[in-house]
Amino acid sequence: MPQTHHDLRKLLTELPRPDGQAAAAAKARNDMLTKPQGALGKLEDLALWLAAWQGRELPRLDKVQALVFAGNHGVVARGVSAFPAEVTVQMVANFTAGGAAINQLCRAAGAELKVLALELERPTADFTEGPAMSWDEFLDALRQGMAQVDDDADLVCIGEMGIGNTTTSAAIAHALYGGEAGDWTGRGTGVDDAGLARKAQAVAAGRARHEGILDDPLEVACCLGGRELAAMAGATLAARRARIPVLIDGYVASAALAPFHAATPDFLSHCWAAHVSAEPGHVSLLQKMDLSPLLDLGLRLGEGSGAATAIPILRAAVATHAGMASFADAGVAEKSD
Amino acid sequence: MPQTHHDLRKLLTELPRPDGQAAAAAKARNDMLTKPQGALGKLEDLALWLAAWQGRELPRLDKVQALVFAGNHGVVARGVSAFPAEVTVQMVANFTAGGAAINQLCRAAGAELKVLALELERPTADFTEGPAMSWDEFLDALRQGMAQVDDDADLVCIGEMGIGNTTTSAAIAHALYGGEAGDWTGRGTGVDDAGLARKAQAVAAGRARHEGILDDPLEVACCLGGRELAAMAGATLAARRARIPVLIDGYVASAALAPFHAATPDFLSHCWAAHVSAEPGHVSLLQKMDLSPLLDLGLRLGEGSGAATAIPILRAAVATHAGMASFADAGVAEKSD
Repeated sequence: MPQTHHDLRKLLTELPRPDGQAAAAAKARNDMLTKPQGALGKLEDLALWLAAWQGRELPRLDKVQALVFAGNHGVVARGVSAFPAEVTVQMVANFTAGGAAINQLCRAAGAELKVLALELERPTADFTEGPAMSWDEFLDALRQGMAQVDDDADLVCIGEMGIGNTTTSAAIAHALYGGEAGDWTGRGTGVDDAGLARKAQAVAAGRARHEGILDDPLEVACCLGGRELAAMAGATLAARRARIPVLIDGYVASAALAPFHAATPDFLSHCWAAHVSAEPGHVSLLQKMDLSPLLDLGLRLGEGSGAATAIPILRAAVATHAGMASFADAGVAEKSD
Repeated sequence: MPQTHHDLRKLLTELPRPDGQAAAAAKARNDMLTKPQGALGKLEDLALWLAAWQGRELPRLDKVQALVFAGNHGVVARGVSAFPAEVTVQMVANFTAGGAAINQLCRAAGAELKVLALELERPTADFTEGPAMSWDEFLDALRQGMAQVDDDADLVCIGEMGIGNTTTSAAIAHALYGGEAGDWTGRGTGVDDAGLARKAQAVAAGRARHEGILDDPLEVACCLGGRELAAMAGATLAARRARIPVLIDGYVASAALAPFHAATPDFLSHCWAAHVSAEPGHVSLLQKMDLSPLLDLGLRLGEGSGAATAIPILRAAVATHAGMASFADAGVAEKSD
């Protein structure tokens, strides 16, 4: 667990790679199955990706963790959200009671849901006025995220809840990738036009306020981010260290990982973007991060809902890879050319 | 069951509509659930669509039928496929033995698979030389498809197997929608460049040969189609008569329904396109049919594989719609504007 800024940077230089032997065995198996080569499209890609990271010719999804982190944000004082900040704690209670979308989606997909609320009573500072977090606060949240990953998980899904956190995410994206603040700013849970304008103003002000650290992506994560974003990055780092594949949820989860991708481009090679959300900046953000989303269902809820919805697609990939007959076994003629 | 051309046309004027009362109840329920309005995107649309057609405020997916129809095509004599025609019967045996992709996908998605082989030893006639089927043959295949649908099914998925049937499908699309033959012609199971050229030639020749009936979409289905395509249309018609929602698989399944949509534009309102396939004409075909696909995973296998892969997305829609708490029940504050 990284105790300092330096420790974290060092960990990012020591990331394990996928298992080449398992990848080759899975590829050889895939090539014999009773279908034209490549006819299962991304289902084949997913099976090979899971095999490589799990180090198994036949990947499995017996234990799937859905990790949802919650945080509150000082920037809500700028009037950037359609819902009051109390909703973060209310929704955490809804998760605990089993009444939220993510509860139903995890049950349907066979995933174990863990929810971690990160000091909801102590929001981050307003990033338009100063750093959202100190490095101690940032690393503490990151370590809490790391601690949620079980080493024996077959897949980890990351998601979040936090009123104000699409503003935080837009600020990170604008700080890392530039453009106009409005390019990265959407309606989140549904702000009206005036709220959207305040949101874009806050995003622009955040970048301007932290101009001095824009060339250091990890400083961007600390100064413009949030605790739940740091925790998602921590969980993704812990999963990588244990070679566990990760499904990334929507705009906020992507923004949480963007600084780590900017610092270490290979950081996301064990990750797949579960979906592209209705938040308008998400398409560009995924492009910047070299990620191609699995689903496009117009979701904009967060909670890990897109990641949980994508789990059955991975189950389909694993089921076909493991269960299909080979051409030889089934007595099916191969391609004639 | 339609015995004549006239019976079939009559049935198409008597299609039942969705249940307005169930639709309104489901909409009212959806509006109270603990999420910003519309934040679950297409998952909300799917839940409401299922509710309207099933006539239930809380739709269910207890009994899901995956129907796969197989047929052989005289046009394979033109050298349009990378696999020999014997593969159709070999793959049907693979379905029966449980070794194909669709078997694994149905098991993973909780669907009952039924496979019906339609006179594989008696291919349709080569449509470049004359009508692929007589009206008796066409109606017989259509009735066989109708008979596979169980009235108590909650959802029907339609798919197919048939060496040569992407050529048949391209011929139908070209006959209905014009353009160039090459616009509708793709590599199917993987023909080389010479095969692709022969395929486009056959598609163009099919349209030219049947120029006299192009203004009658049902004649197009009979003269340029195939038995498994007629059976898919029959299953879709039977599902409509029982108000059972339908998931359409890929290019061939879409082409099977295109003439019916052209004859009766409302014919597909109980259907959702499960995916857009890698076959290049599929995007345009879905646009012509006013369908928006759920998934885009680069699949090009057929067998109903895309429809089966989409079933869990519908299960996610049903689970969130039925299981989520309301704002009032969960004590969550609503939007503040």
